[in-house]
Amino acid sequence: MKLLLKDIQQAHARIAPYIHRTPVLESRALNKIIGCELFFKAENLQKIGAFKARGGCNAVFSMDEKSLKKGVITHSSGNHGAALAWAATLRGAPCTVVMPENAPTVKIAAVEGYGATIVLCEPTMAAREGTVAKLVEEQGSTLVHPYDSDVIIAGQGTAAIEMLKQIEQPLDIMIAPVGGGGLLAGAAIATKALAQNTQVIGAEPAQANDAWLGFKSGSRLAHFTPNTICDGLRATLGVRNFEIITEQVDDILLCSEERVVEAMRLIWTRLKVICEPSCAVPLAMIMDQPAQFQGKRVGIILTGGNVDLDNLPW
Amino acid sequence: MKLLLKDIQQAHARIAPYIHRTPVLESRALNKIIGCELFFKAENLQKIGAFKARGGCNAVFSMDEKSLKKGVITHSSGNHGAALAWAATLRGAPCTVVMPENAPTVKIAAVEGYGATIVLCEPTMAAREGTVAKLVEEQGSTLVHPYDSDVIIAGQGTAAIEMLKQIEQPLDIMIAPVGGGGLLAGAAIATKALAQNTQVIGAEPAQANDAWLGFKSGSRLAHFTPNTICDGLRATLGVRNFEIITEQVDDILLCSEERVVEAMRLIWTRLKVICEPSCAVPLAMIMDQPAQFQGKRVGIILTGGNVDLDNLPW
Repeated sequence: MKLLLKDIQQAHARIAPYIHRTPVLESRALNKIIGCELFFKAENLQKIGAFKARGGCNAVFSMDEKSLKKGVITHSSGNHGAALAWAATLRGAPCTVVMPENAPTVKIAAVEGYGATIVLCEPTMAAREGTVAKLVEEQGSTLVHPYDSDVIIAGQGTAAIEMLKQIEQPLDIMIAPVGGGGLLAGAAIATKALAQNTQVIGAEPAQANDAWLGFKSGSRLAHFTPNTICDGLRATLGVRNFEIITEQVDDILLCSEERVVEAMRLIWTRLKVICEPSCAVPLAMIMDQPAQFQGKRVGIILTGGNVDLDNLPW
Repeated sequence: MKLLLKDIQQAHARIAPYIHRTPVLESRALNKIIGCELFFKAENLQKIGAFKARGGCNAVFSMDEKSLKKGVITHSSGNHGAALAWAATLRGAPCTVVMPENAPTVKIAAVEGYGATIVLCEPTMAAREGTVAKLVEEQGSTLVHPYDSDVIIAGQGTAAIEMLKQIEQPLDIMIAPVGGGGLLAGAAIATKALAQNTQVIGAEPAQANDAWLGFKSGSRLAHFTPNTICDGLRATLGVRNFEIITEQVDDILLCSEERVVEAMRLIWTRLKVICEPSCAVPLAMIMDQPAQFQGKRVGIILTGGNVDLDNLPW
């Protein structure tokens, strides 16, 4: 069944009591530097420090009591794991998170802090999926996929619904970063239904460009090894994410690693909020190809703020 | 004439079109660590990155055209200078800012960026005031004192009015840091008028404890040399600030320098916002004497986020 705006609206009603209604930030000084009117939906100020709280919460609150008792499980480089662990505690359910060994210490610690059981594995999608499959069989727990899932996509899309309500005039362009594609797919469905004249663009690091390659060729890459500091965007685009994105997203554009660090620093100094590298990708993408954004009203979803202060990229 | 709630309300109506209505941030994880229910009014996300935008804006928009043409002048370690420079541009008025030579580079650059003329002086109150007096005589410009001024106190107090409206249930305690005393005085008048059962407490670094000494002894210190990393709190408590604070503030409490750094880091990692050392003083103060805050509903005004990312205290 095709995911629609009403599914995202229902998800929003379901999760609204548990999440923060994050602010939309603006900076005239930053607008002057970049040359367009920027609106940042600050999901880095969301519960667990990332928009992933929305999807995790929607998944857990969509489950029945019987399944919940056997617990939830997922694989995640960090934020989705923290989100699911956090959401599981809201309903008293056990939670297991399979994490790649190279996940940032601060993200592993966060998942642990929310009370989940952590299982480390090799940093490949095959190892992540294999480890989860084995544990699902052993535990009878429910897999909550980090992005290739309708409840997750619907949950993430609520960020766009909220943002469009918070901004008085229509946006010319809405941008979300793309890793597995949960946020971009959800944001595209919501935006195209609520604001038909708003372009939806995905932003991806050039060194993790599997979504871009798939979008341009019309054929999803099932296996891909990214090499980016954007630890939240190392996943490979999911099956249903690819379908939705191919159908509803206007374009995917790339950015360099150097520009990600520069954009991250601009967000810290100009917006005064902490963002992780993945979160700076849309701004970096604009900075790498400014022409088509000049003078436009551009919405950016700031995805997360979970960084290790002792290990900054500058 | 005594400054009243209505003056602060009028200031709010005057400046509302120009300032951000900053969000109130909460973190359950942080509440658990500290042991009370904390509400942070994020004035670090305010225009120019600090609550000082409120006072500067109120001062400039309270002036008549004739005086404005001759320009405004002030002395400031940084944020008030940026605030006045920013506000002056809104009305097309020239602005001069006298800054101590040891002001952070990032703050000097910010004041310059808002188009003000900068005059550097020795880092003492005598040098700051002497330099300004000389320039006022030469230029015929209007001195907008950074804190010892009713329009400034009224402007800063608008942060408390907004915050009390944003929080649904009454606070047990409202805390603001105290340097020159503009924010604390304004917040005290607003809070005592709007929420009589809310205690108002000033927070000060132990190594810049002139307000504390004056509050405890009943006699304001006119000269004082602080030694603190909190560059925004190095000013000496003003005359009318002392009067208001003595009358309306319930207590002033101190914190150590080490705790300021720890609190600053907690705000960065848990609230995901950038704050400067001065801004972390209320949280540091609670951490240094937690007993009286346990289980209470505590409001903290986060004052500013202007830091040099290449010169962090950890």
